[in-house]
Amino acid sequence: MDAINPSVELTETERVDRLRLIRSDNVGPRTFRSLVDHFGTARAALERLPDLARRGGASRSGRICSADEANAELAASRKFGIAWLAPGEDGYPALIAIVGSRNASGAGLKFAGQLARELGEAGFIIISGLARGVDQAAHRASVESGTVAVLAGGHDCIYPPEHGDLLAAILDRNGAAISEMPLGHEPRARDFPRRNRLISGASLGVVVVEAAHRSGSLITARMAAEQGREVFAVPGSPLDPRAAGTNDLIKQGATLVTEAADVINAVAPIMERPAMHPAGEPDSEPFESDPQSHDRGQITGLLGPAPISIDDLVRMSGASPAIVRTVLLELELAGRLERHGGGLVSLL
Amino acid sequence: MDAINPSVELTETERVDRLRLIRSDNVGPRTFRSLVDHFGTARAALERLPDLARRGGASRSGRICSADEANAELAASRKFGIAWLAPGEDGYPALIAIVGSRNASGAGLKFAGQLARELGEAGFIIISGLARGVDQAAHRASVESGTVAVLAGGHDCIYPPEHGDLLAAILDRNGAAISEMPLGHEPRARDFPRRNRLISGASLGVVVVEAAHRSGSLITARMAAEQGREVFAVPGSPLDPRAAGTNDLIKQGATLVTEAADVINAVAPIMERPAMHPAGEPDSEPFESDPQSHDRGQITGLLGPAPISIDDLVRMSGASPAIVRTVLLELELAGRLERHGGGLVSLL
Repeated sequence: MDAINPSVELTETERVDRLRLIRSDNVGPRTFRSLVDHFGTARAALERLPDLARRGGASRSGRICSADEANAELAASRKFGIAWLAPGEDGYPALIAIVGSRNASGAGLKFAGQLARELGEAGFIIISGLARGVDQAAHRASVESGTVAVLAGGHDCIYPPEHGDLLAAILDRNGAAISEMPLGHEPRARDFPRRNRLISGASLGVVVVEAAHRSGSLITARMAAEQGREVFAVPGSPLDPRAAGTNDLIKQGATLVTEAADVINAVAPIMERPAMHPAGEPDSEPFESDPQSHDRGQITGLLGPAPISIDDLVRMSGASPAIVRTVLLELELAGRLERHGGGLVSLL
Repeated sequence: MDAINPSVELTETERVDRLRLIRSDNVGPRTFRSLVDHFGTARAALERLPDLARRGGASRSGRICSADEANAELAASRKFGIAWLAPGEDGYPALIAIVGSRNASGAGLKFAGQLARELGEAGFIIISGLARGVDQAAHRASVESGTVAVLAGGHDCIYPPEHGDLLAAILDRNGAAISEMPLGHEPRARDFPRRNRLISGASLGVVVVEAAHRSGSLITARMAAEQGREVFAVPGSPLDPRAAGTNDLIKQGATLVTEAADVINAVAPIMERPAMHPAGEPDSEPFESDPQSHDRGQITGLLGPAPISIDDLVRMSGASPAIVRTVLLELELAGRLERHGGGLVSLL
């Protein structure tokens, strides 16, 4: 795993600061990442939070998580054996999703297993949905190397029920089960697409192995693209309806996969780039592009309740992309911005 | 066919001039096209030939075909029912090559036939090598719409012999057989790759349906790319060795094909661009970039018996691409230049 996971070392202070930042008002995962990228450290971001929110038009200052609260949470977590990991830290898994048809062909199942095994040997953790077909084959082949099942229902409502044994084997080795649903929640049809965004979002990329037109796996692929994840697809004969979706993905620009190396080569450059900068090394002068109140007014004026793309905002405002991003960050911290998929934003 | 073949109308004079040009010393198909593109008409090119060859260092003027000779050839051709067609003229066929494994799978054969039929219905003429497997399936499905077999041996040495009936059916309808070999020439192993360059060169693009690693069809695809033709490939399962070559082609940038529309959409823009300009409309000022003797000396000095790419020549000489092209054309007309595949040239 070390070879594929260049580690970032966090000091205990920076760890506490990062927990404070993500627990503060209006700071979601995306804003968190923007702030740390911009300011270099969570501490620097925390110090600027009130000012940024005020410029974004916050009527009152959002709550900032205190060091005491953060330390208490870390201590309580440790008591339960919970490890707190930031992306890029040692032990933060390099996840690759493998998804596909529930009624896959024998060749599809065999290939899914082969790919999961080879990616597992290369140090990747396989994430999938515990469904019949491709999901099952991918999990089963990576039980020993480590695999993560994302559930559509609560942790005690395994679907399909006959996969209880597989999940037990996953948890017995190096694996995990993830759910955002409360205990006792039986999965309904609409929970599956919702669950799929967690699979794609948690992973570096999504490999689709066999998918018919308009199948659930294509929704996962679309979400992956919207989330900025790599999309991979396994080709098949034009006469095989189970390859129609994957062939279409390739036509649309997905990376064609016939062997593990195709996946590894494509994600290697992403993994060499630390998920966030080590403390104290901002990627650019922090907010070297301070928006003028003129910019702020104009960009905010272009926003409304209907989602608009950030690219359009840049074009229509005439401001630089850096200025537009900064104004959006301010609005976000003021709790006035909503981000949608595909680079779309709207005013709340 | 009209819909997909925007026609160029040649006057009888321009037809005679074009025949004179292609029959003159040191003018091959590539030089012919460069000259007509540069000067707008074959007549203008003919007038400049002696001067260009002299600048290229020809010791004595190459022979230029006279109008009498050209007229005599056209008259003799007509007597034998031979039609003389320039690319882009009405009736000049829009050829698409379909090639692939001799031992193709049932699915591969079925798809080859289906694609040939649909492209035939769309007005394309299918060109292939009369081999077993994919070639045979493609020819058979396009007998009615029109198909061209390119032979590795002479016209009387059909290989494989059992395809004599298929060839008879092709010729009986709208088809043709092409060979560059003399009558009585039995095809040897090395004649097949040589024949393949005619298939790719005659076509707008080459569709490879099933090909193993290192198979003959991949040679055809490589030649097509070198000749500036479109390369298409039909995907297949990673577990099917007969799809290994086609999947690799797609990884290298070939267009993925699952239906006729994929081919038609890709070649449509090429077909809208006439193969050569109608008489009197050069694409740029004729030789607006007249090389100075300094350029000529420098570029010629960089050339030797070892092939070098034209891109490298441009970079190393510091001259503009137009200047380099002009100097190369002059050398070619002087009989001093050899062109290889892939944009490579050497001095003779």
